[in-house]
Amino acid sequence: MSWQLTAADLPDLARGATLLGTGGGGDPYIGSKLVEQVLGSGSITVLDPGDRDDLPDDAFVIPTAQMGAPTVMIEKLPAGTEPTLALRTLEKHLGRRADATMPIECGGVNSMIPFVVAAETGLPVVDADGMGRAFPELSMETFAVYGVPGSPLALAGERGEQVVIDTGADNRQLEWLARAVTIRLGGVGHIAEYSMSGADVRRTAVPRTISMALSLGRAIRLAREAKRSPFEALAQALAPTLYSHVVDLFDGKIVDVERRTTEGFARGRVRIAPVAPGSELVVDFQNENLTAHRDGELLAIVPDLICVLDHESAEPITTEGLRYGQRVRVLGISTPDLMRTPEALATFGPVAFGLTETFAPVEQRTAGSLTAAG
Amino acid sequence: MSWQLTAADLPDLARGATLLGTGGGGDPYIGSKLVEQVLGSGSITVLDPGDRDDLPDDAFVIPTAQMGAPTVMIEKLPAGTEPTLALRTLEKHLGRRADATMPIECGGVNSMIPFVVAAETGLPVVDADGMGRAFPELSMETFAVYGVPGSPLALAGERGEQVVIDTGADNRQLEWLARAVTIRLGGVGHIAEYSMSGADVRRTAVPRTISMALSLGRAIRLAREAKRSPFEALAQALAPTLYSHVVDLFDGKIVDVERRTTEGFARGRVRIAPVAPGSELVVDFQNENLTAHRDGELLAIVPDLICVLDHESAEPITTEGLRYGQRVRVLGISTPDLMRTPEALATFGPVAFGLTETFAPVEQRTAGSLTAAG
Repeated sequence: MSWQLTAADLPDLARGATLLGTGGGGDPYIGSKLVEQVLGSGSITVLDPGDRDDLPDDAFVIPTAQMGAPTVMIEKLPAGTEPTLALRTLEKHLGRRADATMPIECGGVNSMIPFVVAAETGLPVVDADGMGRAFPELSMETFAVYGVPGSPLALAGERGEQVVIDTGADNRQLEWLARAVTIRLGGVGHIAEYSMSGADVRRTAVPRTISMALSLGRAIRLAREAKRSPFEALAQALAPTLYSHVVDLFDGKIVDVERRTTEGFARGRVRIAPVAPGSELVVDFQNENLTAHRDGELLAIVPDLICVLDHESAEPITTEGLRYGQRVRVLGISTPDLMRTPEALATFGPVAFGLTETFAPVEQRTAGSLTAAG
Repeated sequence: MSWQLTAADLPDLARGATLLGTGGGGDPYIGSKLVEQVLGSGSITVLDPGDRDDLPDDAFVIPTAQMGAPTVMIEKLPAGTEPTLALRTLEKHLGRRADATMPIECGGVNSMIPFVVAAETGLPVVDADGMGRAFPELSMETFAVYGVPGSPLALAGERGEQVVIDTGADNRQLEWLARAVTIRLGGVGHIAEYSMSGADVRRTAVPRTISMALSLGRAIRLAREAKRSPFEALAQALAPTLYSHVVDLFDGKIVDVERRTTEGFARGRVRIAPVAPGSELVVDFQNENLTAHRDGELLAIVPDLICVLDHESAEPITTEGLRYGQRVRVLGISTPDLMRTPEALATFGPVAFGLTETFAPVEQRTAGSLTAAG
């Protein structure tokens, strides 16, 4: 059944989307401010992808997103009209109006872009996405894995530039060309792509990731307000979702952060020492956290979620926010089955990041799962 | 009145287009081979832009061209279908079929691309272009100067990639974005842009540059065959055109060629020493020849044509073809009035190339005009 999102929900949604960003995805806060500004006291209809009354098989959905370096957006606030222009450009190209928009990435700033579009156009947002988290490339999509091509893609710039790119079934080439345009637009572009039917949404999208982000962000806040453990609240909120396994990977203090920006990616490594003497946890990232190792043993690996949170407040920390001396807790969170199939792993599993290690579900690798212990 | 172009005309057209390339524009030879291959024993209708029966005011013209580094094309022969795909993509975007195609650049390889399209589609080619020579950027167009925007532009790649770019009236931004896509397509893309009416062609295009290129190439060849001076023949062929002034700038031997590739342009300088003792001629280029100086005195400057030809055969030599020891003759050729207005000079005159020198017509700067002296 559909539900209404109001401005009051945005801080919780932003917190949950940061968690699902697993260190990357860009800051949803700025995006939430854009939504707030356009939405005012209104509300946005969010459609349940499992409900055929909400989203009929023949409904036409055009997802919207931001492409580029999230750090640029901090310095160069978008006008807010670009993602809607991208959607309108694709509608015109396809000769068909959208019945709804949808995120292609529920983690980070891209959780918010469809709501900017929805607030401006009155369109509803489908409660689903194509990553189930954040990934560094827009071709890393369950949509793509299960046969919905990214093409044609529409891209809009802040001075009204409109670009349509069609590379047929080749999503890597689409990413490659769209990225080049984005760079020349100043580092950020807004896009509409992976247009599909309601039936395709049900077949290819990770369902209910927006309502999940909202509930995770809300659970953390309510637990803090009630002086309960926000970690316990988080595990309880995740339990009934497709991300049901939460594993306590580590508790410690950041002793080293190494960062370099290469090929447009923020790559690096954070080392976390235990409070009591013992071996460190090492987390490697490429925009998002990719692997967590201890004593050379792999504890968690992409696409499962590796989340670094503040030890006390459970506030999720992005890789840009990592600082020497921070007391943090690191969680591994399992991902839905449709993100773990051989086809999915080929697209956004270890091999897609040049890693030689094999994927194994985080809940199988390690013992201590987080439940009531919090 | 319209006329027919056959494969037998292509070598002469290629020679004339190399001359109008003024050192750059890419080698029309490869383009002519593509036309030959598609055309076979057929013919292409070439429309006179001055004839309203050939080209009614409401005719719809979509120019076609190649974009990118001409040197790449030598290593990576296009399939030949890309420029037609670009035209079809733009037709689809605009919802209107073209009545004809047209060059946007009559110098170099882009003299040939519309004939590839014409041979494939059966469309006629308008005998006109938007540069009246070759220039390094696709925004350097009389079309643009006189109010026809390049947008929307369609770009096609060898693997069927289709890109449409619309930057409104901003042709520099269009060039900037299209260039980025071209680079990622491997260095060469094929484009359709500056779509316009027959009335716009008459108002904004440099007329009859294709028939002129053909007659220049033919004049040189026929003079050689008849053991007459090809330079004299060239001057006679130019006399009745809008490029009527031919100035003998220099006769000598190449003593130095300096080249560097920066920002995607082939920049450099050639020094030519006189046969008898005396001061050298210095020609600076950025893809095309920009200036000719002797003893610090400016003899000719862009957009007028500075052409380096073989001393004996009058074969035009591109900047890539310049070699130490070559015996060459350098001609300055006047350009039509519509290429010398203040608006035109702002777009492709000295200031557009960062030169501080002022434009003055080549026929006013120097004394010795080339007529019968040959």
